[in-house]
Amino acid sequence: MSSFAPLPDPPYYAVIFTAQLSDNTDGYSEMADAMVALAAEQPGYLGVETTRDQSGLGITVSYWTDEIALRNWKNVTHHLLAQKLGKERWYSHYTLRVAKVERHYDGPEGR
Amino acid sequence: MSSFAPLPDPPYYAVIFTAQLSDNTDGYSEMADAMVALAAEQPGYLGVETTRDQSGLGITVSYWTDEIALRNWKNVTHHLLAQKLGKERWYSHYTLRVAKVERHYDGPEGR
Repeated sequence: MSSFAPLPDPPYYAVIFTAQLSDNTDGYSEMADAMVALAAEQPGYLGVETTRDQSGLGITVSYWTDEIALRNWKNVTHHLLAQKLGKERWYSHYTLRVAKVERHYDGPEGR
Repeated sequence: MSSFAPLPDPPYYAVIFTAQLSDNTDGYSEMADAMVALAAEQPGYLGVETTRDQSGLGITVSYWTDEIALRNWKNVTHHLLAQKLGKERWYSHYTLRVAKVERHYDGPEGR
């Protein structure tokens, strides 16, 4: 799987999720993998980019065709469980931003 | 410095920069630190969140009040040099997306 999400014609939506892991990460890695796989099955899913440093600070950006798609994903049953465990157990702090992508480019090919 | 950017009243802008480092990272770390410091001095700068994993995949999201602020930042002289070196030397691939943040929340405090 590429580390980069595709670049469909804008506009589309980005969900920017920044999170610091707590000291209790039991079950986190398995759930994170399961959520990436589950997200990819949802209507309107475009792709995901995710990375985490050694301090446990992670940024995951998922991309969606529209607001309806990302709202539906928020309410998928297994995802609700993941959110609950994240709040209760895995994250010491997180922020989530919903943003409309207006334009994009990539490189360095074709520069 | 907090790893998290503040959450000003939306709308505001996010620049989502995802990049895979190449094998040639000479000077990269110093430049990255300098750019984070320089960005913070620019008009319209709101904050930055950045992380990179051991494979060299990094996501940096910088936040700006408006389009004018992020366009000005793109053209700051020292930043132009950083972009040039990034394309020529440091990044094997990158994507940059400009997105308008419509809403946000954080946690797990206050849930």
